[in-house]
Amino acid sequence: MDDLVLACDMGGTNLRIAAVDAGGRLLCRAEAETPRHSDASRIVDAVVSLASECRSIVGGDREIRGLGLVVPAIIHSNEGKIFSSPNLPELNGFYLSAALTEKLGLEVTLENDATAAAIGEHWLGASRGFDCSICVTLGTGVGGGIILNGEALRGPDGTAGEIGHICVEPFGVLCGCGSFGCLEQYSSASAITRMAKELKPQFPESELNEESAFDALTVFERGISGDPLCVEVFRLAGLYLGIALSGLINVLNPEVIVIGGGAAGGWELFIEHVRTEIRKRAFQQPAERVKIIRAALGDDAGIIGAARLAFSKTA
Amino acid sequence: MDDLVLACDMGGTNLRIAAVDAGGRLLCRAEAETPRHSDASRIVDAVVSLASECRSIVGGDREIRGLGLVVPAIIHSNEGKIFSSPNLPELNGFYLSAALTEKLGLEVTLENDATAAAIGEHWLGASRGFDCSICVTLGTGVGGGIILNGEALRGPDGTAGEIGHICVEPFGVLCGCGSFGCLEQYSSASAITRMAKELKPQFPESELNEESAFDALTVFERGISGDPLCVEVFRLAGLYLGIALSGLINVLNPEVIVIGGGAAGGWELFIEHVRTEIRKRAFQQPAERVKIIRAALGDDAGIIGAARLAFSKTA
Repeated sequence: MDDLVLACDMGGTNLRIAAVDAGGRLLCRAEAETPRHSDASRIVDAVVSLASECRSIVGGDREIRGLGLVVPAIIHSNEGKIFSSPNLPELNGFYLSAALTEKLGLEVTLENDATAAAIGEHWLGASRGFDCSICVTLGTGVGGGIILNGEALRGPDGTAGEIGHICVEPFGVLCGCGSFGCLEQYSSASAITRMAKELKPQFPESELNEESAFDALTVFERGISGDPLCVEVFRLAGLYLGIALSGLINVLNPEVIVIGGGAAGGWELFIEHVRTEIRKRAFQQPAERVKIIRAALGDDAGIIGAARLAFSKTA
Repeated sequence: MDDLVLACDMGGTNLRIAAVDAGGRLLCRAEAETPRHSDASRIVDAVVSLASECRSIVGGDREIRGLGLVVPAIIHSNEGKIFSSPNLPELNGFYLSAALTEKLGLEVTLENDATAAAIGEHWLGASRGFDCSICVTLGTGVGGGIILNGEALRGPDGTAGEIGHICVEPFGVLCGCGSFGCLEQYSSASAITRMAKELKPQFPESELNEESAFDALTVFERGISGDPLCVEVFRLAGLYLGIALSGLINVLNPEVIVIGGGAAGGWELFIEHVRTEIRKRAFQQPAERVKIIRAALGDDAGIIGAARLAFSKTA
C-alpha cells in the first residue's frame, strides 16, 4: 500500500490531525482541544497523542513518512522554530519540529496557516493548475498566502503574505498590528460586526437595532433578506477588499485569487463590489486575466497543504 | 578580449545605447532623440544606427553577443513583442525583437524599464547581494521592479511590479491609470508639483506664492531652505510612500528597497517620513530587516540591467 503522511492543523482553539495519502485523501481524522498552558510541552503531548490515535486507526502496515504541521504563527521553517505566535504565545521561540520529531520519530515540516492553505488550494483546490495565485482568508482576521511560479512565497523572515495588513485607509481604524486602516479592519468577520455596530445609528430602520449582540453571520443573514444596513456593511467589506486586491493584481499579476474563510460565506453580498473595484482600479490586462474564486477545500486547506509539504520533504 | 553586449534604453524622449562588458563596464555610449512617428520602423532604424555607431567605436575584433533593450512598456518578453507602450504608442503590438534581430543579426532581449533597473541595481548597484529586493523609481510617475529569490518578477502578462498603482487614498486623486488615490499621485515628481500648487493657499508665507510656475526641483530647493509649504509637500510624499512600502514589506518581506528616479533627489526631505510610517505600520521583524536605500546606478540602471539580461540569454 502507498505511504501516508500525518498532517496537523494547530489552531488557537482546536488541534486537528489526519492521515493523508499521496493523492490528498484524508483517511482518518482525530481532533482535540488545543491545551492552553504556559508550558509548550502540553501542546507537544496533545499532538503526539492525536498522532498515535491516527496511526493506530490506519494500522501498522502503512508507513508514515512524516508530519506536516500548520501553525497560526510566524515561523522559521528551516529551523522548525516558532518565531511569533500571537494566539499560542507559549510557543514563541520554541523548536516545535525537533520536540515532535523526538517523540514521534517522524520528520516534521512546519508551515504558517495561511501559506499552508494556499499550498493546499494549489495542490487540490480552487487554484489547482495555476502557478501564480493568492489565497485570502477572511476569518476573525484576514490571512494571506502567495504562490509564485509554483512556489510558496515566505520571504527571509517567513512573514511574507500578510495581505490583511495592507493599508486601505491611511488614517483609518487602529489595527491589532499597531498600524491604521489595515484591510483586516474592513473585510474580516470581526470588521463586519464592528462596522455594523458603528453604522446602526445611520440606519434606524435596520432590524439590527433590535439586537443587543450579533455576529457576522447575523449581518449576512439580514443582508440576504435586504436589510439596508447589512447590505451596506458587506458593500464596504467588498469595496476595501477590492482596493487591496487591485494593488496586489498590479504588483503581482496573479492568475487567480482564492477567497476563503468564514466571512467568505458572505460571497453573494460582497463579491460584485470586489469585482467592481478591480475593474475600476487594476490595470486592464492583469484585471481581465485574474480569476476571483471561492476556496474549495474549506477548513481542510491547511491540512492538505501540510500533507503536500510533508510528502515533498520526504520525497 | 572578452565578449561584449549592446544595451539600449529606449525612453520617450531619448534613445541611449552602450557597449557593455561582462563586468558591467560601459565601454562606449551613443545617444539620439527618440524618433516620434506613427511608423515603428523609424525607431528600429534609430536603434540600428546607434548600434552601428557603438560597434564601430569598440572595433570589429570584439564579438557582440546580443542586444538588451529597455522599453517603457508592458511587454511579452518571450515573444519579444510590445503589448502596451503609453509613451511610444507606435510600438503597441509590434514585434520589436524580431525587427531588430533581422537588421542587426543579434539576439535581442526585451525588458520593461522598471524591471531592468531592478535587475541592474541587483547586479551592480544598491541591492547587490540581496536576493529579495524592490526598486521604486520616483520620476514623472512611480515605477517599480521586484526581484524575488534572485529572479525578476514579471507575471504571466509581464505587468507585475506596478508599485506606483497601489492605492494609498481610497477616494483620492484620479490617476492616469483610471483608478483613484494611486501612490503615483502622491510621491512622484509631478505629484510633488501638484500638491505644492494645491496647498499654496494654506501657506501664504511660502515663497512659492511668488512663482507663477515651478517644478519638483524648486519645491525641493525651497524645502531645504525651510519653506514650510515645501517641507509639508515632501512630508506628504514620504508619508504616502511609507504607507505603500509598509504594505509591500508585509506582503513580500524584502531584504532591501531601493529608491531611485529624479524625485529621489528629495531624499533628505522625505526619507524620515518613509521610515516613520514603516516603523509604525509594518510588522516588526520584516520592518527591522529591510534596508531602505538610494539607488546607486542613476540613469544607467536600466542599461546595466539590459546588459545583464543579454549576457544571461546568450550564456
